[in-house]
Amino acid sequence: MSTFGTLFKVTTYGESHCKSVGCIVDGVPPGMDLDESDIQPQLTRRRPGQSALTTPRNERDAVAIQSGTEYGKTLGTPIAMLVQNKDQRPHDYSEMDDYPRPSHADYTYQEKYGIKASSGGGRSSARETIGRVAAGAIADKYLAAVNDIEIVAFVSQVGDVSMDRSPRNEQWISTLEGVTREGIDSTGPMRCPDLALGEKMVKIVEEHRDSHDSVGGVVTCVIRNCPVGLGEPCFDKLEATLAHAMMSIPATKGFEFGSGFAGAAMSGSKHNDMFYKDVASGRFRTRTNYSGGVQGGISNGENIYFNIAFKPPATISQEQATATYAGKDGVLAAKGRHDPNVVPRAVPIVEAMAALVIADAHLIQESRKGAKSFF
Amino acid sequence: MSTFGTLFKVTTYGESHCKSVGCIVDGVPPGMDLDESDIQPQLTRRRPGQSALTTPRNERDAVAIQSGTEYGKTLGTPIAMLVQNKDQRPHDYSEMDDYPRPSHADYTYQEKYGIKASSGGGRSSARETIGRVAAGAIADKYLAAVNDIEIVAFVSQVGDVSMDRSPRNEQWISTLEGVTREGIDSTGPMRCPDLALGEKMVKIVEEHRDSHDSVGGVVTCVIRNCPVGLGEPCFDKLEATLAHAMMSIPATKGFEFGSGFAGAAMSGSKHNDMFYKDVASGRFRTRTNYSGGVQGGISNGENIYFNIAFKPPATISQEQATATYAGKDGVLAAKGRHDPNVVPRAVPIVEAMAALVIADAHLIQESRKGAKSFF
Amino acid sequence: MSTFGTLFKVTTYGESHCKSVGCIVDGVPPGMDLDESDIQPQLTRRRPGQSALTTPRNERDAVAIQSGTEYGKTLGTPIAMLVQNKDQRPHDYSEMDDYPRPSHADYTYQEKYGIKASSGGGRSSARETIGRVAAGAIADKYLAAVNDIEIVAFVSQVGDVSMDRSPRNEQWISTLEGVTREGIDSTGPMRCPDLALGEKMVKIVEEHRDSHDSVGGVVTCVIRNCPVGLGEPCFDKLEATLAHAMMSIPATKGFEFGSGFAGAAMSGSKHNDMFYKDVASGRFRTRTNYSGGVQGGISNGENIYFNIAFKPPATISQEQATATYAGKDGVLAAKGRHDPNVVPRAVPIVEAMAALVIADAHLIQESRKGAKSFF
Amino acid sequence: MSTFGTLFKVTTYGESHCKSVGCIVDGVPPGMDLDESDIQPQLTRRRPGQSALTTPRNERDAVAIQSGTEYGKTLGTPIAMLVQNKDQRPHDYSEMDDYPRPSHADYTYQEKYGIKASSGGGRSSARETIGRVAAGAIADKYLAAVNDIEIVAFVSQVGDVSMDRSPRNEQWISTLEGVTREGIDSTGPMRCPDLALGEKMVKIVEEHRDSHDSVGGVVTCVIRNCPVGLGEPCFDKLEATLAHAMMSIPATKGFEFGSGFAGAAMSGSKHNDMFYKDVASGRFRTRTNYSGGVQGGISNGENIYFNIAFKPPATISQEQATATYAGKDGVLAAKGRHDPNVVPRAVPIVEAMAALVIADAHLIQESRKGAKSFF
Repeated sequence: MSTFGTLFKVTTYGESHCKSVGCIVDGVPPGMDLDESDIQPQLTRRRPGQSALTTPRNERDAVAIQSGTEYGKTLGTPIAMLVQNKDQRPHDYSEMDDYPRPSHADYTYQEKYGIKASSGGGRSSARETIGRVAAGAIADKYLAAVNDIEIVAFVSQVGDVSMDRSPRNEQWISTLEGVTREGIDSTGPMRCPDLALGEKMVKIVEEHRDSHDSVGGVVTCVIRNCPVGLGEPCFDKLEATLAHAMMSIPATKGFEFGSGFAGAAMSGSKHNDMFYKDVASGRFRTRTNYSGGVQGGISNGENIYFNIAFKPPATISQEQATATYAGKDGVLAAKGRHDPNVVPRAVPIVEAMAALVIADAHLIQESRKGAKSFF
Repeated sequence: MSTFGTLFKVTTYGESHCKSVGCIVDGVPPGMDLDESDIQPQLTRRRPGQSALTTPRNERDAVAIQSGTEYGKTLGTPIAMLVQNKDQRPHDYSEMDDYPRPSHADYTYQEKYGIKASSGGGRSSARETIGRVAAGAIADKYLAAVNDIEIVAFVSQVGDVSMDRSPRNEQWISTLEGVTREGIDSTGPMRCPDLALGEKMVKIVEEHRDSHDSVGGVVTCVIRNCPVGLGEPCFDKLEATLAHAMMSIPATKGFEFGSGFAGAAMSGSKHNDMFYKDVASGRFRTRTNYSGGVQGGISNGENIYFNIAFKPPATISQEQATATYAGKDGVLAAKGRHDPNVVPRAVPIVEAMAALVIADAHLIQESRKGAKSFF
Repeated sequence: MSTFGTLFKVTTYGESHCKSVGCIVDGVPPGMDLDESDIQPQLTRRRPGQSALTTPRNERDAVAIQSGTEYGKTLGTPIAMLVQNKDQRPHDYSEMDDYPRPSHADYTYQEKYGIKASSGGGRSSARETIGRVAAGAIADKYLAAVNDIEIVAFVSQVGDVSMDRSPRNEQWISTLEGVTREGIDSTGPMRCPDLALGEKMVKIVEEHRDSHDSVGGVVTCVIRNCPVGLGEPCFDKLEATLAHAMMSIPATKGFEFGSGFAGAAMSGSKHNDMFYKDVASGRFRTRTNYSGGVQGGISNGENIYFNIAFKPPATISQEQATATYAGKDGVLAAKGRHDPNVVPRAVPIVEAMAALVIADAHLIQESRKGAKSFF
Repeated sequence: MSTFGTLFKVTTYGESHCKSVGCIVDGVPPGMDLDESDIQPQLTRRRPGQSALTTPRNERDAVAIQSGTEYGKTLGTPIAMLVQNKDQRPHDYSEMDDYPRPSHADYTYQEKYGIKASSGGGRSSARETIGRVAAGAIADKYLAAVNDIEIVAFVSQVGDVSMDRSPRNEQWISTLEGVTREGIDSTGPMRCPDLALGEKMVKIVEEHRDSHDSVGGVVTCVIRNCPVGLGEPCFDKLEATLAHAMMSIPATKGFEFGSGFAGAAMSGSKHNDMFYKDVASGRFRTRTNYSGGVQGGISNGENIYFNIAFKPPATISQEQATATYAGKDGVLAAKGRHDPNVVPRAVPIVEAMAALVIADAHLIQESRKGAKSFF
């Protein structure tokens, strides 16, 4: 459903053509500085029209906090936030509406609910993610206060142009250690930390755009400075809730953390991360990090990193030989311009979902630490 | 935590050396035939010692239903099930206990809880999965009654020996269509439907066993005959709850469904699944299935299939240069024989978690269908 | 926290002086007619200033649906609703703010959260209930469609003027059978179905108002035409979730259903409700209804009825000898006019919470009925 | 359903004639001393056959911890506990089984689930409460460690013999301050702190027993030393979760806390609890406690006290003129001896449910306190 989290709990609402989209964030710790300027930057990073590569609609997406703060401080009560929709009228019927768009959610929404928003997939619209990003920005701020926890996502693949994400690749590990949101945004429209690859990715997206096609990609995310001990086995292991969060983002096809699918081909003697005591920091650490910062479902203090596969956007303006809801064969040609690639815009969404998971896990672990102090 | 699901809800308990392991399954629909003979086969498939390739301990793992049935019918009340542990004594201290085992859960459990079962990772033990498998067997039976829903998992990769899992590979699609649990079990110890590859996998596992090492692998699962309409956007999309379920299984590193990570490299024009009306069955179907049976988070009636990456088991009997809890460098050598590869045993665990997710999604959708009938 | 329900799930937000108050209602069955005109009447019944007996502030409280409907039909997606606050500025400091108001939530909010809305109790403000009433109106509409389920609340006591609520009193049972919302509203400002008692209640409230005091009361609620089988033992028995819902309303001190506290004094031979088959309706019924329509936590098809005790409002304009937060003795005198009695305004809030509980229980039972049809 | 709580979470199972009854308690803080001797005393207080006034069956009810502890310490993992049933065979059919017992759960269970345990109400059996009591004993131990929190319940009414529970009655307030479990148990079979009334209660129960009838009563519970700040508005106010917990106990008809229903008749000027600083303890306190230790849904540090009404047991051995399931009028006469009054046995059940609520609220508040410390 539309609520996520146990103690840090977000509930979202809204589709493309209703009055507004937004969320209620419950369980935000009280006494934290917070106003719209903490939320808006991530919403702005999420919105379309930021470059020639993404859809040119200009959505302003200005967030308004409705409740839960006073004089710029959180009260511990639910924080509602909303963004007005510009286009609030249901979409008019056209012949194209006789067709469920291939690989879109039109057909499944119609079958599940027996009714469907005129705009198509309803909650499968990308506008649904606005509530997530707004909520995630609050979680972000909390995590920075807690332990300087930093969450940074970036594009590591578009089509077949990919960074070498092998956990044995030292340059990759060093990228994970060093990337920042500011740095990523300065690299250009693809948000890829490797500038040369970023340029190739731009070309691939342009080619797909010009041939009325679309192309998929991979977003990688790293969480740094996460304290040891987060995650709730056995069902709410940290990787399980991260996977849940990421796979709930529209258009995702896969999730892997640490060594990921490559780890399946490895031997234990290579994959095991040996421990050592780091003299400088006094921290107990591992020499390698194939584990991806999580062991037994619990964070171990190393960088948590994971990759999310995004499929190519389903809406393309090529003609497609498909069938109408009534089962009649025909040709569907979507009109207008469509996003040939979504992964740069997915970056703040991934960061938001990661922040929500870590904030919730952190609060739960705080309850245990407090409790344990009594005996 | 240790409860999973909304209406079909399982709670598990138990670690290696306590009295018993088991679960309570709440929300099982009433009036269904059920006794231990429905549960035991999957537990037996899960247990170690089934071949020379897995750990030779002979655990009988006989399940006993405690409640929730009478005269072989479910009552609609919670069904508790338990399996006695053979070794109920805490493990005695040895010098090896000074070391957190690399890439195991010893260190993170100790840090999270401030205490640790003598047996090591406590709930990260493979015995924790017994409760899942017992619960999943009930879900299985329900799903078979509901719509002849079939869930079959198998090993598709060990080390670098892998089936070609490309969704463009017609043989792969045909394997997904045809595999059965009985068929898989008849292929040999690796539970790989490709006999030639299965033999190669055996060799790889034997090599690792002989060199006191371990090796990872991939389990693939297919869900057939799933009705259209399951999954609860936006946070509980079917792929999101499947990912959560799968990534909560010990030793998993990745989850992908449909085209998965390969889909990230594809173009929309290739990836989109065109619709058609199947005259024979009268069903509205898709010509290809890159979507993996789920669109917009909701099942579309096609086969749901996904891959789960398992890392190599962390416990190996090679010497490992690591550190003690106290931070002193040293050499750890695990004693005894250890499982060099777990993926064949993971097969029924994957099936169980898939069944739990689908049963829960099915019940939720039934509530909506019933409700909708009133207007 | 601020989310209530399992399948029919409402999340509320807002306090007195923020931008808006409202809610997100998730899980509303799709395809139901719904627009603001279904919501507004109950909000209007809830608002203050309806008579000389209640606080004279004139809040318009016009609700705006933000999402989840199109062309006047529910889509099955979350329905957000909001009501603008007229007074959006935090309240200015006055000397009175040094005092936690006696029996109000000022002190406990300050201690729990370490911060407090300037308006005082934050979420303990009566404006918090707007979201509940809006959500309840949707549940109401669903329940009417389902089975002509009717939920009617009314005032049965103010101060020591009370209707005879004994379950042996035939007139009382007949009142429960016959009351309607329209009828109740036509009785005058107290919403008491006994006109003579209603007039006495008015006098009591006037006396308290004139002496700068306040007075408590009791609201009774009846649910008619509830189908047999709702409620989820053992923890979510129908009376348990109703009690939870009712005791979450501000200023409540008690909940009893059926025979209630009077039942504690009775003998089993008198209290047991004998069964019979009603020839006219073909229904299996009970001759008496001390059970209050629920047996073993599950509805039995008889009228469900319960009473909720409300304390006298804590804010009075008499001088009160109390202490400041700093612990200094002093005298607090609240300024302005305050509601001397809240029970008539509580009537739609009680109805809303009852509707939310029954709608949720109904959806859960629908899931079971659908499931059971498969075997 | 059968799971209760958010962080301190209990799931129970079992009915009268299955193999065992028990529970899984998840979220118990790690590192706490715990073995069966902490659990058994409350189970023993709960069991029948303790005096001539209760049913003479001698159930031993010996609890066995299955998991979650090692060397007498909690591990932070789920603690499963079970008690064997002595009578594990389904009950044989008799003519009496054609009748749903009046005011029992036979009819509603049959209608809800379409099947029914032969023993009758299945989970509505009193044996269901064993899991609650076992879980509550763990919560008790935690709460004692946390803040010397004490929870004591006792019988304050049987039939029409009642202690004066008015919050204005100083002797009542002093009883709430001073009662202990040991003291209560020493008063005799009725567990009433007023010895003279206790003797009258015994007579009433004997009279009902001798006339093959039953009689109801009231249990009062007090929670002392509860810290300020527990409870989660707006839906999970402390009184709301306590009400939920108490009204989920079989045979309950009402819940009131603090001034309760009597408070509805009071004026605000009398009901408001004035604050003062207690010099000796340094605590901020209230001079009266009509609030019952909770204001705005949050504990204020004063004693939390509440009353729960229990109806007379439905099973009586008098002949009852009722109807069969088939709707045929007839006479039902229950055989055997039945408990004429259950309130003394309800005492440990009430304590257990109170402990579960407070432990859960305490853990949630600890998470907030920990979080807040970061800014």
